[in-house]
Amino acid sequence: MKNMTLEQFANVVASNEPVPGGGSVAAVCGMLSAALSEMVANLTIGKKKYVEHEKEMFEIKEKASQLKSKLMDYIEKDSNAYNTVMDAYRLPKETPEEKEIRKLAIEEGSKLAAAIPLEVAYTSYEIMHLAEAVVLRGNSNAITDALVAAMLTRTAVLSALLNVRVNLSSISDEEFTVRYKEKSDLLEAKILNYEKKILEYSPF
Amino acid sequence: MKNMTLEQFANVVASNEPVPGGGSVAAVCGMLSAALSEMVANLTIGKKKYVEHEKEMFEIKEKASQLKSKLMDYIEKDSNAYNTVMDAYRLPKETPEEKEIRKLAIEEGSKLAAAIPLEVAYTSYEIMHLAEAVVLRGNSNAITDALVAAMLTRTAVLSALLNVRVNLSSISDEEFTVRYKEKSDLLEAKILNYEKKILEYSPF
Repeated sequence: MKNMTLEQFANVVASNEPVPGGGSVAAVCGMLSAALSEMVANLTIGKKKYVEHEKEMFEIKEKASQLKSKLMDYIEKDSNAYNTVMDAYRLPKETPEEKEIRKLAIEEGSKLAAAIPLEVAYTSYEIMHLAEAVVLRGNSNAITDALVAAMLTRTAVLSALLNVRVNLSSISDEEFTVRYKEKSDLLEAKILNYEKKILEYSPF
Repeated sequence: MKNMTLEQFANVVASNEPVPGGGSVAAVCGMLSAALSEMVANLTIGKKKYVEHEKEMFEIKEKASQLKSKLMDYIEKDSNAYNTVMDAYRLPKETPEEKEIRKLAIEEGSKLAAAIPLEVAYTSYEIMHLAEAVVLRGNSNAITDALVAAMLTRTAVLSALLNVRVNLSSISDEEFTVRYKEKSDLLEAKILNYEKKILEYSPF
């Protein structure tokens, strides 16, 4: 999916197929946020004024590049996880054995479809640390790019968490759903506060 | 730029060139939000349960598709506007005449670089109406996609407005800067309230 053009991707999102949808778009948001932080680090490196932050900027550039690639792969993984659930629903359900197999496949598929966006949410949360660092210590000519990175990360995390929650409703394993719900609630509260804090540094 | 793959686009954002940056990414966010609302309309059309909203969903699909295309073109327009300003700064400034021409070119370029993201912000704001409609009356199986559309629009508008404001600082025409600042402040307040209102419909 990362090999689709922006136009093609927008058009397949817009189509009457349920995927790629919000889950894949969440991963795109995280990916673009990482790209913006990487850019601000790049625009800071080599500038005399920021020499004391040079080492940190190299680390941010490296980390941002890794997380950008990771999320790029999750654009597709999220859609694949959805398809796994849909395939499970299409399994035969005539005999008790078939019914049991189908039920298990739906349960396992739904767990995967919740686990993938939770991973997107955690990965995007990591990216917020990079956005914060470039807002505070990056090239001030690129502060708006750094602030956009922070807002994009917030949207990536919240969007991914919606996709975690919607999948929990199809899972009967209560230990799993309680654990995922707790993680999601905690991460939601954290990212909302984190974005608020970073936007307070905005000169605008 | 819309013909770049997602991977290529992420990599040119991440590079040490200042554009494409947050302004182009804002347009991408608006474009993907429109695409998600279009998808939810598509997933609602033809479903018995939603027959009373069928006409509205066709209108949303049409409108979303138009705004998606419009924002797709703004991905590139935003970067071009930035380059116009940079070209102006590179003009010769030896003679008084050259200085005067350069000053005018910077002023006009900066006005364009503020006007383009304001257009992205207004266009993205229009998309919020589509997101609200599909959250409220679209296929409830796709409610998370509709909510992601709303969050993306908020980020598109706020990100574009940051790019309006950063360009105002290079403009000496006070009538222009006051007018743009007022428009930006109003739109910021409106989009924050609008997103808040829509997210209150979330079942999660």
